Amino acid sequence: MNKITILGSTGSIGTQTLEVVDKNTDLKVVALSTYQNIDLLEQQIYRYKPKKVCVMIEDKANELKRRLVMSDVQIVSGIEGLIEIATLDEVDSVITALVGMIGIKPTIEAIRARKKIALANKETLVTAGSIIMPLAKEYDVPIIPIDSEHCAIFQCLNGEDKNTVDKMILTASGGPFRGKSIEELKKVTLEDALNHPNWSMGKKISVDSATLMNKGLEVIEAKWLFDIEIEKIDVVIHPQSIIHSMVEYIDGSIIAQLGEPDMRIPIQYALYHPLRRDIKHKATNLLKLGQLTFEEPDYNTFKCLNLAYESIKIGGTMPTVLNAANEYAVNKFLNNKIAFLDIPVEVEYAMEKHCTINNPTLEDILETEKWTQEILESR
Amino acid sequence: MNKITILGSTGSIGTQTLEVVDKNTDLKVVALSTYQNIDLLEQQIYRYKPKKVCVMIEDKANELKRRLVMSDVQIVSGIEGLIEIATLDEVDSVITALVGMIGIKPTIEAIRARKKIALANKETLVTAGSIIMPLAKEYDVPIIPIDSEHCAIFQCLNGEDKNTVDKMILTASGGPFRGKSIEELKKVTLEDALNHPNWSMGKKISVDSATLMNKGLEVIEAKWLFDIEIEKIDVVIHPQSIIHSMVEYIDGSIIAQLGEPDMRIPIQYALYHPLRRDIKHKATNLLKLGQLTFEEPDYNTFKCLNLAYESIKIGGTMPTVLNAANEYAVNKFLNNKIAFLDIPVEVEYAMEKHCTINNPTLEDILETEKWTQEILESR
Repeated sequence: MNKITILGSTGSIGTQTLEVVDKNTDLKVVALSTYQNIDLLEQQIYRYKPKKVCVMIEDKANELKRRLVMSDVQIVSGIEGLIEIATLDEVDSVITALVGMIGIKPTIEAIRARKKIALANKETLVTAGSIIMPLAKEYDVPIIPIDSEHCAIFQCLNGEDKNTVDKMILTASGGPFRGKSIEELKKVTLEDALNHPNWSMGKKISVDSATLMNKGLEVIEAKWLFDIEIEKIDVVIHPQSIIHSMVEYIDGSIIAQLGEPDMRIPIQYALYHPLRRDIKHKATNLLKLGQLTFEEPDYNTFKCLNLAYESIKIGGTMPTVLNAANEYAVNKFLNNKIAFLDIPVEVEYAMEKHCTINNPTLEDILETEKWTQEILESR
Repeated sequence: MNKITILGSTGSIGTQTLEVVDKNTDLKVVALSTYQNIDLLEQQIYRYKPKKVCVMIEDKANELKRRLVMSDVQIVSGIEGLIEIATLDEVDSVITALVGMIGIKPTIEAIRARKKIALANKETLVTAGSIIMPLAKEYDVPIIPIDSEHCAIFQCLNGEDKNTVDKMILTASGGPFRGKSIEELKKVTLEDALNHPNWSMGKKISVDSATLMNKGLEVIEAKWLFDIEIEKIDVVIHPQSIIHSMVEYIDGSIIAQLGEPDMRIPIQYALYHPLRRDIKHKATNLLKLGQLTFEEPDYNTFKCLNLAYESIKIGGTMPTVLNAANEYAVNKFLNNKIAFLDIPVEVEYAMEKHCTINNPTLEDILETEKWTQEILESR
């Protein structure tokens, strides 16, 4: 029996993780959390009978307590609540499917409590990879990525000697605006940006896919996760999203992982690693598919990808600025306050203003996030 | 230092194995062999300074002895000669790059002498897989395949649990006649058949690629090499020959091995397995490549593939009949005695006439080869 805590169970990855739980009787939900979606969390409580849940927003936590006065589920709130459910004695694995830098502290505490980490929270490694990875090593805790690209690379490295890796090739669908010119991007709407061709995802990540920032963040994650030089990480546009990523070895061999775009595959892989479980929702039909194509990313039009590479080459707190500025800008775009092409402009502005702190502490990182928001607010 | 014997050093795989030797100073050639190409063997002797060589045809062996009277290389001949150089005390690995069933006995003796086997001789497993594989297991000898497809599957299985394999997918270029109708195939010439789009190979294997018999033989080999049910082995046409084969797991994940069509990659992989060595002759440029496509094989037009599946489903000596009849028919085709479409007709005729021997001994297998030649001669 694998006893799990899902941090962020009402989001896209969280709900799909629960679908994986539905298919595997040996997974037991011990704790769940939501930012404020207590309606969905309430349903999840009835169905999965967790011992404890965390609602980030205290008012919402109190409302849920009133609704569930007859239930014996324990309801906690805030970042302390998240840490509490991430470190429960009986928990084996923590799935961190939170959005934003709020995921960092609970992940750190879960590692210290020697929980296996299934990581779907990009910000944790993008901003604090230099803290998280050595800590995981110190506590001998595996960090298994939950996203199709890193899960693919994880699989492509199976049984191989890391020193023989020549290159990691992250594939990118190119998003809804692949092939568009800057002129065309001036006119795109929020609705266009949210309309991803292959994946159904949350709003933030859908916009990040449209700007290619998502791929940039994945490049940074890959650097930390696989302890590889940034120069050895390439991005190739692969519109069909069938090859999820590849590893090229020094003998010229490339190992690739392919499959239907279905997040339940990497979620289950992370939960059972190193075992594989039968979960064939839909077999990959290469014949029906016909063809797989590849293109170079358009770095001039989709500047976010370049900015991401730049930020990790600078290192220190710069990826935190990239990430926080992007979060800020995407939020403004989602609220129709700025245009699509303003997103990289905001990010670049913050990066230019920032004075990098090398070897940052967690406090430096969290301060940098605040600083970034302030510098953009006051712009 | 890896000390090697190359059985069949003057053929396509043999000469490419020597190119790999050129690039790796820790490979030492101890012995070489040829069927009758003593001119090339003589050059190889000067260059690689083997201790012993075998020339299959005795007259040719004697001629070479006269030429090399001043040299201290030892020259042997015949099947006993092959066995002698395959079992030399100082040899670590034997590369069996012979063509035909002549490869079986030396391979068996090399296994008994506990040499690591790098196997490029298809007939060994196609006809005697039921003898070879248990023997290799008994002597704890690894059998590493030298051909792009099985080498790919070998790599895709790295670090994985064999019980989670759902399917093995062998890719086939489709050969020079891909897409052609039976009507069109009636008119093809020997020259057309030898004109393979992606690989430069020997004549026999080029014709086998054109009929798809080559893929059929590989399906049978895969069954033995990876101890997998024939129902789990699929063939897909992939004209670009970039994906060399794939393994689909029970969780819906497919692992694929890709690379430029260059036999030196699987040859080197076999010689250094489980290590990888830098031999990047030509990096795989997915961007330049543009697209990878997939089609279903045309089983009606290319009957040899079906016959191969049929033969291994029947089992026993039937794959030997398939292989021997094909060898006979291809030879006739190469000598302009029969037309391209007559190849499967000859094979099917022999298979229909054959009374299968189950659990055959090596003698049964060799007898069956003779029987097949005779039944076709007397047709």
